Amino acid sequence: MATDPVKTGRRTPASPLKKIPGAKLRVIPLGGLNEVGKNMTVVEYGDDIIIIDCGIGFPDEDEMPGIDLVIPDVTYLEQNRNRIRGMVITHGHEDHIGAIPYILQKLDMPIYATRLALGIIENKLQEHTLPWKPDLRCVTAGDTVRLGASFTVEFIRVNHSIADACALAINTPLGMMIHSGDFKLDLTPIEGEMMDVTRLGELGREGVLLLMCESTNAERPGYTPSETKVGQSLEVIFTMHPERRIVISTFSSNVHRVQQIINISARHGRKVAVTGRSMINIVSAAVELGYMKVPDGVLIDIGDIKRYKPEELTLITTGSQGEPMSALYRMAFGEHSQVSLGYGDLVVLSASAIPGNEKLVGRIINELSKMGVTVINDASVEVHVSGHACQEELKLMQGLTRPKYFMPVHGEYKHMAANRDLAVSMGVPHENVFISDIGKVLEIDEKRALWGGTVPAGVVLIDGLGVGDVGNIVLRDRKHLSQDGLIVVVATVDAASGLRVAGPDIVSRGFVYVRESEELMEEVRRIAVDAIDISLRRSGLDWFEMKAAIKDDITKYLYGKTKRKPMVLPIIMDV
Amino acid sequence: MATDPVKTGRRTPASPLKKIPGAKLRVIPLGGLNEVGKNMTVVEYGDDIIIIDCGIGFPDEDEMPGIDLVIPDVTYLEQNRNRIRGMVITHGHEDHIGAIPYILQKLDMPIYATRLALGIIENKLQEHTLPWKPDLRCVTAGDTVRLGASFTVEFIRVNHSIADACALAINTPLGMMIHSGDFKLDLTPIEGEMMDVTRLGELGREGVLLLMCESTNAERPGYTPSETKVGQSLEVIFTMHPERRIVISTFSSNVHRVQQIINISARHGRKVAVTGRSMINIVSAAVELGYMKVPDGVLIDIGDIKRYKPEELTLITTGSQGEPMSALYRMAFGEHSQVSLGYGDLVVLSASAIPGNEKLVGRIINELSKMGVTVINDASVEVHVSGHACQEELKLMQGLTRPKYFMPVHGEYKHMAANRDLAVSMGVPHENVFISDIGKVLEIDEKRALWGGTVPAGVVLIDGLGVGDVGNIVLRDRKHLSQDGLIVVVATVDAASGLRVAGPDIVSRGFVYVRESEELMEEVRRIAVDAIDISLRRSGLDWFEMKAAIKDDITKYLYGKTKRKPMVLPIIMDV
Repeated sequence: MATDPVKTGRRTPASPLKKIPGAKLRVIPLGGLNEVGKNMTVVEYGDDIIIIDCGIGFPDEDEMPGIDLVIPDVTYLEQNRNRIRGMVITHGHEDHIGAIPYILQKLDMPIYATRLALGIIENKLQEHTLPWKPDLRCVTAGDTVRLGASFTVEFIRVNHSIADACALAINTPLGMMIHSGDFKLDLTPIEGEMMDVTRLGELGREGVLLLMCESTNAERPGYTPSETKVGQSLEVIFTMHPERRIVISTFSSNVHRVQQIINISARHGRKVAVTGRSMINIVSAAVELGYMKVPDGVLIDIGDIKRYKPEELTLITTGSQGEPMSALYRMAFGEHSQVSLGYGDLVVLSASAIPGNEKLVGRIINELSKMGVTVINDASVEVHVSGHACQEELKLMQGLTRPKYFMPVHGEYKHMAANRDLAVSMGVPHENVFISDIGKVLEIDEKRALWGGTVPAGVVLIDGLGVGDVGNIVLRDRKHLSQDGLIVVVATVDAASGLRVAGPDIVSRGFVYVRESEELMEEVRRIAVDAIDISLRRSGLDWFEMKAAIKDDITKYLYGKTKRKPMVLPIIMDV
Repeated sequence: MATDPVKTGRRTPASPLKKIPGAKLRVIPLGGLNEVGKNMTVVEYGDDIIIIDCGIGFPDEDEMPGIDLVIPDVTYLEQNRNRIRGMVITHGHEDHIGAIPYILQKLDMPIYATRLALGIIENKLQEHTLPWKPDLRCVTAGDTVRLGASFTVEFIRVNHSIADACALAINTPLGMMIHSGDFKLDLTPIEGEMMDVTRLGELGREGVLLLMCESTNAERPGYTPSETKVGQSLEVIFTMHPERRIVISTFSSNVHRVQQIINISARHGRKVAVTGRSMINIVSAAVELGYMKVPDGVLIDIGDIKRYKPEELTLITTGSQGEPMSALYRMAFGEHSQVSLGYGDLVVLSASAIPGNEKLVGRIINELSKMGVTVINDASVEVHVSGHACQEELKLMQGLTRPKYFMPVHGEYKHMAANRDLAVSMGVPHENVFISDIGKVLEIDEKRALWGGTVPAGVVLIDGLGVGDVGNIVLRDRKHLSQDGLIVVVATVDAASGLRVAGPDIVSRGFVYVRESEELMEEVRRIAVDAIDISLRRSGLDWFEMKAAIKDDITKYLYGKTKRKPMVLPIIMDV
């Protein structure tokens, strides 16, 4: 495990922060707004830049077909690489740390995170070759680290669906800035203590210049229930179904959830087997780091489940989002090598579908139901709670910190707008609320906060091993191809003699069954012949014009006949 | 308006139903199970076939890229065209009537429906050319029609999110069959009466052989609220926002919802303008047919809204599912020619997102929020109620009809399984519940009900003007193309001399930016040259082998370099 621990103790910066006359505090989100995932924020003052989080996003298949993930565009950071003093991490979820291996290819800097987050980051980095040894520094909630002449960052304990999550109190020469990270208030967390409301209140009393606060659940009234509630629901389920094998699917990073499942299973005399790559990875990492405690003899290998009766077993699995090829997906479609489910088995989906995944999750429930499996999800029983603050908790954050300026972050626009309305209802003047955008700069000086232009920003698409080699034109082509397919028109001509030498041949993919459309394709061929021959006969042969004619004539013909617009791709070779 | 009215009056079949010794009642769903939409059920006895409903489905873009809609495969009906006695329609929603224009191209039969459904069907048929004059027959709830020697069908009033919806009591020589259609119990419907529970109860007392009951909301506890509840919520919204322009988006077919919006607007002194093609069509049809009553002077043309102040206006619009290019979508993206929304406007989404549409709807809310528009949806206020029965209403249907056999229909498998569990909880023996599948035959005789094999069934895909010319291979190609794009390898060879005449040229689309990947494409070209030349040099030139070699070598190379698998399309021409 890591690494150079940096414990400077609470509120003890090594030297006073350096104030520069006329210098402004600049806050620039590079991700995490108006989209899911890839949280990243740049804070700068004078010659110093610090970075908060560095996450990935998983794009919508409809919008970005074939793209595996997206990371923030860090052109601005590359242009200012010498000013970067370090990165501070709020917690170990993918949308806050997942892009680190990609960013570290280009930029070297110390990364400060709590122990679990750092363990997950180290794990990730092992799968990548870096140009330099990563500089990872372990902190504990309560620690303050100094970053450059302008910043100290204090890590403040919050509750969330992953252990060891923090808010950040960033002291700057112009005043205190608080970033909530992802948080909720859990008065009965499974492990550790409740969110440090006292410290946040102290900071509020001392004066907070700017609050940046997550907005995920800003549309939901009330409080998010405690993680303990899930344990109570599971306890009831285990008690009511003593004769069944119980399979529970949840997020692998929710160490506390997994801990609860293990505890309840042990109490009911069940063995626990874990399946799914990320679940196995995280459980072993969490056990190793001491974040999870497993009673002796409870964990068994998934290969050994045949030695036990169904009622002696709990299986914990990935796949709660319906991800194709996840362990639960393979069980539902009868493709899991060790687990075959059937009548009498009970599957608990201890998660809610992330927007966009509803259909995938529904498909798994349908398949399991067909097998005779009973499925329990959070629609009927409280087997999942959110990790994010609802409206009353967001108002608590406002009430504790009482910021001068407020920037809602982390959510779609509607969520940030709802968070703005909550802040205004708590007394923040409307004109002091700033809903930002990727690359949009908020500049704060001693008198006011104002928008200060933009910096280069956006997303970099990752497809297989390619980073950034797929862009808008490629995506537009993929979408076009997926809608109506493709017609390729190939011909070889002799430009000198003005004669066709071979072709045109017509090849289609994704358009129609060729066998059922021979006439249509024959007509397409005839149109291509005409377009080519007319071009060839014309004095001053123009390849561009010939291709445009082929494309236009065929597109027009096919649209009239079929109301479809396949991509038409003319390829003309000259001998 | 239509058409030969067929009123034989309640319970007065012209002659007794003809019982045939040994003949079985066969029930075959051709759609509406395990998927959204395209409801269709075949019922047959002896020489007679009747059809219940004839709907379309809207496929998932991920699963069927580019497909506009799907209709049931009616091969079985074509094979038995002489036995078809008629089609009976439960109500006028697209997933129950939308396929009629396509099916009538192939099959001619009388279609029985209530007045609103028939009006919508007639409207649809005007856009298609049919080989025969459609035989449309208007019925009223309470009517019974005779179909062949084996069936009478009684139309029984139910409540639903479209006016004039019916359940069907199908009397057969073996006993009474009830099909619920889509229904809910609304004790305070906007127009007309509550569901005819008395008649259903009478039939139950007389004995029901088989109940087919919809399952949409079988996972939801309780009762579905009355449509009147929406009016109450809207009344509050209108009262609280007297100064704002109010835009309400809902399903165009929900005539009662639109009626309520018009009534409330008139009461608050507002003019109402309608936008969106289907909304304009349905409102004019409903007014014409007498299903909607508009006070004089309330409706204005959308082009005239500039003459009124915002607070004098209500706009009713399509687009509640976030459909791209719907009227609401165009408003949200500033592309609507007559309506430009902004700060102070209020948009009410009087609908809930159909599963799969959540992201589209979310996108519209985000865009409206960015404009400063306030958005109210059913997450915060009850501005929408479902048209489908929840658990208590489904149990009411069981309790009224007390069927011997039960077939849950209309829903995904999980919904049908939940409906089965409700029936079992009401006393239907588990072995008397039959969850069917498309094309699966349930055979009932006087002693028992048993599965009786399958008939040809499935979906026919409609893409543009093409009906059925897109199948699995085309869809597979479209999906492949959308994931990693395409590489076309074109060359002209002289098979006689064994020489390349032109090419190979490499053209890619949807794969990578070519400019950033010149080296990669050059290497692909070199691999193609090798594969072609080796094939040409080999004695006994084999085109198939040459293409396979090009494909394999390039695929392997690109996967190693990029972890992507674009479609590789070799086209070799011989001079």
